[in-house]
Amino acid sequence: MNFTPRNLTIAYIGGGSRGWAWGMMADLAADPDLAGTVRLFDTDIQAAKDNEAIGNKYSAHPQAKGKWRYVTAPTLEDALKDADFVVVSILPGSFKEMESDVHTPESYGIYQSVGDTVGPGGLLRALRTIPMFEKVAAAIRDHAPEAWVINYTNPMSLCTRTLYAVFPEIKAFGCCHEVFGTKKLLMAMLSDLKGIDVAERDSIKVNVLGINHFTWLDSARYQDIDLFPLYKIFADKYFESGYDTVNREEGFNKYFESAHRVKFDLFRRYGLIAAAGDRHLAEFCPPWYLKNPETVARWKFGLTPVSWRTKDLARRIEKSKALLSGSESISLDRSGEEGVKQMRALLGLGDMVTNVNLPNRGQISNLPLDAVVETNAVLQRDQILPVHAGALPPAIHALVVRHVANQETTLAAAFAKDRELAFRAFANDPLVALDIESARKLFETMLNNTRAYLPGWF
Amino acid sequence: MNFTPRNLTIAYIGGGSRGWAWGMMADLAADPDLAGTVRLFDTDIQAAKDNEAIGNKYSAHPQAKGKWRYVTAPTLEDALKDADFVVVSILPGSFKEMESDVHTPESYGIYQSVGDTVGPGGLLRALRTIPMFEKVAAAIRDHAPEAWVINYTNPMSLCTRTLYAVFPEIKAFGCCHEVFGTKKLLMAMLSDLKGIDVAERDSIKVNVLGINHFTWLDSARYQDIDLFPLYKIFADKYFESGYDTVNREEGFNKYFESAHRVKFDLFRRYGLIAAAGDRHLAEFCPPWYLKNPETVARWKFGLTPVSWRTKDLARRIEKSKALLSGSESISLDRSGEEGVKQMRALLGLGDMVTNVNLPNRGQISNLPLDAVVETNAVLQRDQILPVHAGALPPAIHALVVRHVANQETTLAAAFAKDRELAFRAFANDPLVALDIESARKLFETMLNNTRAYLPGWF
Amino acid sequence: MNFTPRNLTIAYIGGGSRGWAWGMMADLAADPDLAGTVRLFDTDIQAAKDNEAIGNKYSAHPQAKGKWRYVTAPTLEDALKDADFVVVSILPGSFKEMESDVHTPESYGIYQSVGDTVGPGGLLRALRTIPMFEKVAAAIRDHAPEAWVINYTNPMSLCTRTLYAVFPEIKAFGCCHEVFGTKKLLMAMLSDLKGIDVAERDSIKVNVLGINHFTWLDSARYQDIDLFPLYKIFADKYFESGYDTVNREEGFNKYFESAHRVKFDLFRRYGLIAAAGDRHLAEFCPPWYLKNPETVARWKFGLTPVSWRTKDLARRIEKSKALLSGSESISLDRSGEEGVKQMRALLGLGDMVTNVNLPNRGQISNLPLDAVVETNAVLQRDQILPVHAGALPPAIHALVVRHVANQETTLAAAFAKDRELAFRAFANDPLVALDIESARKLFETMLNNTRAYLPGWF
Amino acid sequence: MNFTPRNLTIAYIGGGSRGWAWGMMADLAADPDLAGTVRLFDTDIQAAKDNEAIGNKYSAHPQAKGKWRYVTAPTLEDALKDADFVVVSILPGSFKEMESDVHTPESYGIYQSVGDTVGPGGLLRALRTIPMFEKVAAAIRDHAPEAWVINYTNPMSLCTRTLYAVFPEIKAFGCCHEVFGTKKLLMAMLSDLKGIDVAERDSIKVNVLGINHFTWLDSARYQDIDLFPLYKIFADKYFESGYDTVNREEGFNKYFESAHRVKFDLFRRYGLIAAAGDRHLAEFCPPWYLKNPETVARWKFGLTPVSWRTKDLARRIEKSKALLSGSESISLDRSGEEGVKQMRALLGLGDMVTNVNLPNRGQISNLPLDAVVETNAVLQRDQILPVHAGALPPAIHALVVRHVANQETTLAAAFAKDRELAFRAFANDPLVALDIESARKLFETMLNNTRAYLPGWF
Repeated sequence: MNFTPRNLTIAYIGGGSRGWAWGMMADLAADPDLAGTVRLFDTDIQAAKDNEAIGNKYSAHPQAKGKWRYVTAPTLEDALKDADFVVVSILPGSFKEMESDVHTPESYGIYQSVGDTVGPGGLLRALRTIPMFEKVAAAIRDHAPEAWVINYTNPMSLCTRTLYAVFPEIKAFGCCHEVFGTKKLLMAMLSDLKGIDVAERDSIKVNVLGINHFTWLDSARYQDIDLFPLYKIFADKYFESGYDTVNREEGFNKYFESAHRVKFDLFRRYGLIAAAGDRHLAEFCPPWYLKNPETVARWKFGLTPVSWRTKDLARRIEKSKALLSGSESISLDRSGEEGVKQMRALLGLGDMVTNVNLPNRGQISNLPLDAVVETNAVLQRDQILPVHAGALPPAIHALVVRHVANQETTLAAAFAKDRELAFRAFANDPLVALDIESARKLFETMLNNTRAYLPGWF
Repeated sequence: MNFTPRNLTIAYIGGGSRGWAWGMMADLAADPDLAGTVRLFDTDIQAAKDNEAIGNKYSAHPQAKGKWRYVTAPTLEDALKDADFVVVSILPGSFKEMESDVHTPESYGIYQSVGDTVGPGGLLRALRTIPMFEKVAAAIRDHAPEAWVINYTNPMSLCTRTLYAVFPEIKAFGCCHEVFGTKKLLMAMLSDLKGIDVAERDSIKVNVLGINHFTWLDSARYQDIDLFPLYKIFADKYFESGYDTVNREEGFNKYFESAHRVKFDLFRRYGLIAAAGDRHLAEFCPPWYLKNPETVARWKFGLTPVSWRTKDLARRIEKSKALLSGSESISLDRSGEEGVKQMRALLGLGDMVTNVNLPNRGQISNLPLDAVVETNAVLQRDQILPVHAGALPPAIHALVVRHVANQETTLAAAFAKDRELAFRAFANDPLVALDIESARKLFETMLNNTRAYLPGWF
Repeated sequence: MNFTPRNLTIAYIGGGSRGWAWGMMADLAADPDLAGTVRLFDTDIQAAKDNEAIGNKYSAHPQAKGKWRYVTAPTLEDALKDADFVVVSILPGSFKEMESDVHTPESYGIYQSVGDTVGPGGLLRALRTIPMFEKVAAAIRDHAPEAWVINYTNPMSLCTRTLYAVFPEIKAFGCCHEVFGTKKLLMAMLSDLKGIDVAERDSIKVNVLGINHFTWLDSARYQDIDLFPLYKIFADKYFESGYDTVNREEGFNKYFESAHRVKFDLFRRYGLIAAAGDRHLAEFCPPWYLKNPETVARWKFGLTPVSWRTKDLARRIEKSKALLSGSESISLDRSGEEGVKQMRALLGLGDMVTNVNLPNRGQISNLPLDAVVETNAVLQRDQILPVHAGALPPAIHALVVRHVANQETTLAAAFAKDRELAFRAFANDPLVALDIESARKLFETMLNNTRAYLPGWF
Repeated sequence: MNFTPRNLTIAYIGGGSRGWAWGMMADLAADPDLAGTVRLFDTDIQAAKDNEAIGNKYSAHPQAKGKWRYVTAPTLEDALKDADFVVVSILPGSFKEMESDVHTPESYGIYQSVGDTVGPGGLLRALRTIPMFEKVAAAIRDHAPEAWVINYTNPMSLCTRTLYAVFPEIKAFGCCHEVFGTKKLLMAMLSDLKGIDVAERDSIKVNVLGINHFTWLDSARYQDIDLFPLYKIFADKYFESGYDTVNREEGFNKYFESAHRVKFDLFRRYGLIAAAGDRHLAEFCPPWYLKNPETVARWKFGLTPVSWRTKDLARRIEKSKALLSGSESISLDRSGEEGVKQMRALLGLGDMVTNVNLPNRGQISNLPLDAVVETNAVLQRDQILPVHAGALPPAIHALVVRHVANQETTLAAAFAKDRELAFRAFANDPLVALDIESARKLFETMLNNTRAYLPGWF
């Protein structure tokens, strides 16, 4: 790794993304201390080339402080060769596969709000993604073993787990903004209950423990205020009505936003603050919140249909064209992600404490070693030290270990392409509240639907 | 403790039982080495007096080798005073309460095959039973601290847990015959697949681990035969049809017997042999097997209605009268329980290895310390050494720890008479697949239904 | 706790100190953001009054940025009442007791280089100190439960352990500069081997694990340089000759400085970098380095005689007078301690990662929970999160757990004033390489020598 | 494995032994239920042939109930081929090597009472033995993978550890009679203090935990008598004088017997009963008992010189000749070992609880997994279930883990033939109270002295 902040190389795997990539471009443009080259690699090479052009427009923007050169890498190896950072943010398969992941189970009465982490959809997605990450990990081992690797791809835990399983010395971690969203809710709470306006998300201090998208806070403070007693009042106040952080009339995306009723319910059930969006949290539980669309509506969160994603992609492709043609101009609005801040810390430009996904070395004392867990960590020059997060309380522990067990089974199944093993994890998912024959039928159907991305399974 | 086998004192708490008591009387009568006094204590004093008379008839039987004197103890203290053994087998409440435990949840779509261990019924029963066991434990501490205490009462884990929580030095363990039933199934399997007739249940050697009624075997051998590969064949052969160990035409009790399809399914799901009756196992799982009566029928086990228990009790009361009047004569048929054998071992009349319920001291390495677990143990003169049973495999571990967490919460709730805490455990039970408002309503109804046995809760 | 940085209250227990107190005064004077009152409490009230006057001179110094008011607190309670921070730095007993701690064992062939942590002297000192800390902890619980408590008193582990044992909710940690000294050695190494001049101690990044004064580094980096391979070269290069960081001719304190040969030897034995002064490290080992004065001389560290401490104190008392009379002027030279920086972090003026002593919550996975261990931690507004430090390697683990076991025994002995228990720990100390009768005699002698500070023991 | 008790095959590795072999022959001759073939393998083939003849004399003895055929196996493979049991009892090297193990350290002031387990001698012996056991393990894997393997060779822990390291599925355990000796002492105590004559060693019930030769009892009972309070009285009564179980005048072997003062001292230090001979126990401690021959004499145990062993061997060779020629007749006196009883249990002829050495699966909860530990276990047909022994108390734990760490380092060093690693373990042994240069010199000398049995090290 080259520690020259003004001459960095970032390999961006999945660099053809329409949307998320532009956020990172904006973040890089905003940083006055960093510069270098971003190598975009994507299986859709035209998408990468488009982003190369768009990226260079970001750098050319008069207000851009960080000047980066964007290039298209023809192969994974070209992208990685001696990179300082590797960013992985890919879609495993197309929306056709995701259509199967999310909607095929509905004919069996299984509803999923996202379908990319756990549940039947998350499992199938994992089976497709793990082999891709096996390749990525091997390529990093061979071409950029010293690079810091930041993964944004879901299923987060299993993607990061795969990287370490294939290349144990990898310097990788997974990033997710769900905890940030919970911090925002706590800021809204302080405003609502106390009239306090918190300026900076980072001034909410939390202890984070759990697994990605099923993450929990067992302490939360703002300055000298313990936020737990407040949250109890808040959860009771808004349990029935829900609490909308957005205006439901305008700008509200009913498929993404929620009224936090699931979070409030989990708090009342277990006493800790669940720290992810309701759509994610619901998928980790028995079908308390996802029994049917009416139940979902009552809990005031959304089922995100893949049709919406397809339309949204079309919109983003239009935007890509507009950015390329210049009919739409570049905006330097920050993404809200922490990737660039983290790179700064890893380069030695200031320590940082934030929540990341890492193999468990004991930072959560009652989850299995090696499973990928989410806790706070200290990012320093060329190292990440996980904060000791303690133990999950027994009732939450029981919910979480079930998923950890399923994830480990899924990993083994994906490595061995073992259908029986994969089905074991599938049938053991809390959302798969089916008799075993129906579960089997659904599993086989979903496997078959996505066989194009399951080489070696048929 | 007096180690004179021919001058023992057994305190039998719940000694008015019609049925189970007679089995113990037969077992005592069959043992040529033991003798002494059995003190019967029961809140139904007439029932105890009846059993006193019946018990003495057992001793008077010409073929009885063990001659015991049966007396009725007017108080718990009288029963316990310097006893050598204490047997606890009580019914917490009447069938009226059990009616509520088992059937009230049905109007919410929750079916329970037994309703005495986990599930909504098991939890309510625990709330009633724990205070009774607090009293029993305190009385043992005060009046028979050196006695060996054998508990047969359900919920087994929580009853035994309460004894140790109140009097940590107690010498208590819990006994249950469910594992024996599984050994019988393995004997039937050997006959079915190999034509081998196994004479003695004890020659099936198993490693037992789990919690009572949700117990698992991770090894099983008969002589030099590993029974696991056979069980795989057996489970596959009879998965569809089920395997009936009894003649369904005659002598078949449809409420108790099963065709082991649940056990076969659990084996196919998880790879270990579940070692309890299907009716019990089903209650620990998500509603895979108990979704509705049709599902139960398809899995070929029975829902035991309390009406049947009521009728059965009437029959047993009739039998009591007949035994007392002499119109029915005493039978010395053995009970199949191991209590008397265990007493022999604890008296130093020969070591014994069998499965018992004890606080976890690490014998199951991935369950919490102090939780009551079921494993093999060595019974020797005045001591029980648990065998190190190892760890539950991850997927089963996840199912089990959820119940352990609920049990610990239930214990704390019962001690503190804390409604919110009790509801937490209730709502977290896998069978309570209800929205939170419905769960609350059901919980309050069941609590109210059984308030006569919940002093201090209202 | 009051989070107004310019209106703080610091209770300084042991505030009559000649020397250490002045360093803290200088550090406070140097910080432009903090101000408030320092309450000095000392059993030697005149010493406290002297420091009140001296402290106010610091504040009056024209270059002082932080302006503090120093007052003498007549009682512990007065000092603590609603304090924001409590600093504890006391001497348990006088040099007369320390004379016994350090030198009485010499007649039994036991040499101690410091005698304040482990070994016979450390144990006796602990017996005197623990009751004092019981009182301090109770007073903090009653008068300043929200204060952050920074302990500097030795034996560090047991003092901090006592605070938590008495008041489990206390917000206390222990600070020690020994790891800083090791960082300086690593800086010297970089200069010696690589010609690199490191400006800031903090740019040496280390993972710290162990117990106070027997602390270890299992990773050390400067920028992208792994310092372990360098340290191997360094340890081999200077193993024979030793490495002097100071000029032995002038300014060298032969009682305090060392040539790091013990550290080099421990590295060659165990593969990790021991991170404390050689004088401390030697006392935790079997008498490899402390067999006799000749051995000590060969290992090039010093035995610090109490006579030197007595002379040094006389010098410091002279200096105190000179400061009071004005014949010596106030110097604003910083102390090198981190206390004021840590206060800043706890006030929310910037996160900080440093090594502290805290009860083990699992941050060292193979040391007992609750024992006080030394690891890195993140200091943030009103909270300290220990970094997960991992496990000690087996051979070092074995050396460390022996002391942890002795410390736990000592704590129990001090609480119960149990002579047999105290002797158990004494006889089990690695330095006490005596036959049991001699050990007993020495123990009784030392106990008797210091009986003035052992109320309730005789 | 063939479960026909009357047609067994035992492979005896080290079958040329003069003495120990004859004890096993007597035990086999005494058992009326077992019969078959014993294949004797020894690198000294003549010794094996002699024992073949002697063994067959045992079988021919008119009072012999068990009739066995003894044959000499020309190779290890011939001995093992499809054996039912494998007994391993070998001497790694000759007395020339043992002379170096035991006596070379004396010139450095290090005295060893046995020199075959830990200490400098134990370590060197381990370096010679481990490669032999690598070969034995591989041969068992290839030729008798189903056999039960009973190891009697020292160093017990490392020999058994090696068998499992090479062939993890091996069915092996280690046996040692030291705990039996402690039971005898407890029997003597009952006679001395209570006038109770205990007929059977097995009626003393103990919980065993630790590592071989450094094994501890944390409970001991005879019938309803707790032996711990008695042992306290006993240890105090005989601490000064020692307790001789033998007549010191006649039949006393001053090199083997002890007066148990070390055991009494350890009890007073730590509160548990150390369960091995004083000669072994002393070697695991710092040089409390082995400082010099005078200290040893005061503690009333013996240093066993190799010259005595040499003379003893000469006597036994004479006896061998006498047995062969018939000038001495066969005696059927039992050996006191449990090997044949254990075989019976493993054949299914009755369960048995006894102490054995097995890899830690958690049966001792605070020792590392896989290390070979000594606890009770249940021996049943074709399986051994370790009893859950609990945790070592902290102070003893610290002493034990140091040796476990050294053993693991020694194993790795022996596998890799890594001199530096071996020296690390050597220098970290509690008896090696030497400066590092002297330690190095001693280590190299001892290595060189025994190079004939250290192929690949030079």
